[in-house]
Amino acid sequence: MNTVDIIIKKRNGVKLAPEEIKYMVEGYTAGNIPDYQMSAFLMAVYFSGMDREETVSLTEYMRVSGDVVDLSRIKGIKVDKHSTGGVGDKTTLVVGPLAAACGVPVAKMSGRGLGFTGGTIDKLESIPGFQTAVEECEFINQVNERGIAVIGQTGHIAPADKKIYALRDVTGTVENLSLITSSIMSKKLAAGSDAILLDVKCGSGAFMKTVEEAEKLGRLMVDIGNDSGKKTMAVISDMEQPLGRAVGNSLEVSEAIDVLQGRGPADITELSVQLAGMMIYLSGLAGNIAEGVEKAAAALQSGRGLEKFRSFVEGQGGDPEITRSRELLPQAAHSMEVKAERDGFITTLDAMKIGLASQHTGAGRQRKEDQVDLSAGIVLHQKLGDSVSRGDVLCVLYGNDQTKLRLAAEEALAAFEIGDNAPEKRKLIIKTIGDE
Amino acid sequence: MNTVDIIIKKRNGVKLAPEEIKYMVEGYTAGNIPDYQMSAFLMAVYFSGMDREETVSLTEYMRVSGDVVDLSRIKGIKVDKHSTGGVGDKTTLVVGPLAAACGVPVAKMSGRGLGFTGGTIDKLESIPGFQTAVEECEFINQVNERGIAVIGQTGHIAPADKKIYALRDVTGTVENLSLITSSIMSKKLAAGSDAILLDVKCGSGAFMKTVEEAEKLGRLMVDIGNDSGKKTMAVISDMEQPLGRAVGNSLEVSEAIDVLQGRGPADITELSVQLAGMMIYLSGLAGNIAEGVEKAAAALQSGRGLEKFRSFVEGQGGDPEITRSRELLPQAAHSMEVKAERDGFITTLDAMKIGLASQHTGAGRQRKEDQVDLSAGIVLHQKLGDSVSRGDVLCVLYGNDQTKLRLAAEEALAAFEIGDNAPEKRKLIIKTIGDE
Repeated sequence: MNTVDIIIKKRNGVKLAPEEIKYMVEGYTAGNIPDYQMSAFLMAVYFSGMDREETVSLTEYMRVSGDVVDLSRIKGIKVDKHSTGGVGDKTTLVVGPLAAACGVPVAKMSGRGLGFTGGTIDKLESIPGFQTAVEECEFINQVNERGIAVIGQTGHIAPADKKIYALRDVTGTVENLSLITSSIMSKKLAAGSDAILLDVKCGSGAFMKTVEEAEKLGRLMVDIGNDSGKKTMAVISDMEQPLGRAVGNSLEVSEAIDVLQGRGPADITELSVQLAGMMIYLSGLAGNIAEGVEKAAAALQSGRGLEKFRSFVEGQGGDPEITRSRELLPQAAHSMEVKAERDGFITTLDAMKIGLASQHTGAGRQRKEDQVDLSAGIVLHQKLGDSVSRGDVLCVLYGNDQTKLRLAAEEALAAFEIGDNAPEKRKLIIKTIGDE
Repeated sequence: MNTVDIIIKKRNGVKLAPEEIKYMVEGYTAGNIPDYQMSAFLMAVYFSGMDREETVSLTEYMRVSGDVVDLSRIKGIKVDKHSTGGVGDKTTLVVGPLAAACGVPVAKMSGRGLGFTGGTIDKLESIPGFQTAVEECEFINQVNERGIAVIGQTGHIAPADKKIYALRDVTGTVENLSLITSSIMSKKLAAGSDAILLDVKCGSGAFMKTVEEAEKLGRLMVDIGNDSGKKTMAVISDMEQPLGRAVGNSLEVSEAIDVLQGRGPADITELSVQLAGMMIYLSGLAGNIAEGVEKAAAALQSGRGLEKFRSFVEGQGGDPEITRSRELLPQAAHSMEVKAERDGFITTLDAMKIGLASQHTGAGRQRKEDQVDLSAGIVLHQKLGDSVSRGDVLCVLYGNDQTKLRLAAEEALAAFEIGDNAPEKRKLIIKTIGDE
């Protein structure tokens, strides 16, 4: 086999054999295939595409490029959950405890990531004392004892993905369904769970801008998951505006607690109960999704979800008292209100712009080595469709650098458009895939 | 400007501005843009294409990436000639002297190149004493005194092309018309002539397999040449079988002398007179191509072409007596005949296979650092359409390594197909482009 021949084959639209895909992934990960050949190959894949079988092979060889986690010591059907990412998405903090409260073993590895806020791991680290770097053995023990643990990704999960993703990022080869799918699924499949639930975001604040694109991606990921032997389902959910009202690390932890206390925003509550219900179904603890959702809703209402959250936090060294005393979470030194400049209805609340403003308060990273300000972020007081009067507070920005806050406030203001007529109501949960 | 943005723009099919193309070529040549971004860009160009204006810009920035030769000290309209390459193509050795004999100043830089035989420079170096590494000043003096000089390419012509070509070669991005055109034309435009004549080969022994492809390439190169301010024309000529009968370095020099003596093979004679005629026309020394061709034919018949060849060889330190005593050229130690295995007509004489057999006799290089055996090669005794009897000699191989010769003889035999019916006669000069 020869790298140039494989590049040319894919360039000419020919389907690659599993061993050719193996040759590319292994060769590149081992450093035998140079970056310049891999990037030409990736661009050829961008244009020529890969079919389902090729994508399964690509995902599989990326999966086995590093450690594959063994969760067999945990009883029950382990279900992992992954979101393609959006603004204000703190569902893991709610869904994990709700599902665990209903008996689903939740053994989750999460990332930090770049973006508008930190990743789930950064959010959890805003809880005083919370440990995310946990040994595999301890991790498994906590899941067996408390039903849930969430830790940082261990070093050697799918190193092929890490290397390929870094190259895609600088060569204009990110936007391809097979490459996106293999990147996400190789890590999820290596993480050791028995079933996978995907939350594919769609809208201005998401990578996939339209329902059609999001559906295509969701369908492919579900197919690849199932072809790889793990029961996989997906939800397509709206990310035209931020999810919930809080965007930022400790701010989102606080909102997650609100939700578990039954007084959180309706959208994040609805989505969390839906996702938890699907996890319950995937874990075999409900006969269908509706039954799973009922169980999740009951766990929320009874407070069992909140109790599970406290136990989870305590298990990983965090202070469970944050649910009673929010001032235990990191607090920003400064805040700044953004006010409506006219009367009317919020007709646009651009998730991407709020995300960038949040990043600029200090809540997110631009580069891997950047520090995240755990107390910074934005709380939205108005959302899409709300009616406002001139001078009403649209949102409040939090942070420790007033100059940065002023710039972020301008950006946040630009995210809101106010018109004379209320916009059409958007559906939050657009579709589920994989329950056919 | 940002490399990733430019890659994505081209990937998305957007036309690039001249300064964006400049940014890519200059950045890559200077080492500021890494190989992996350039290769992704080249693959995006492969798929999205470049229009005429973009190709002009690409060619221009590659041209000015190094030295641009100044031939202004040479009087008259200098005409350069370039062949896209084939098997047995020794036309430069004939066309140069014929055109020069008619008053066209021929100041040519040639390459060595990889392939079936050496390049023009290797062929000339098979003449005892011939110098190809000549100072620019001496080169110009010889053209002014003798009307013709052919030297090796000086170090710093279009280094961008050198670097980009090396990358294309290993990333599956060779076969794109704009990239091929910019590669050839950037060097030709930097070489300082006033007009350019292109011989675009087409057929099994050429890069372009069909007339349509060859025409597209010829048309684009002519357009780019003219857009760049140099009168440019092209000939599409057949390369289904080798040109002439000799393939190899000193063997081709010998055949070129035969042609200049009026007793060479008809095909190479016809093409050489045509090309020389077009150079005469491009130089303004004939009112139209037909008149130029008449002048070239007269120079051949009168022996003035041969005299010019002798003067040219002498000027560069070579022994002009080779035209009288061929044994002064390098002679191979061994020869081997390949014979027909049945009666019939030659229905196929595969140029590519003869080329590879020639390379394996030692006449050509596989890698840059390989030595060429100047005496090695193949002389064809039968060509397409000839009738043969079993046992007739099809070709004779020459070389200094009998084991290699035996292998090459098998390959040469496989190049011939003998059938019951004479094949249709092929047209040698298929089309001229640029005389509209």
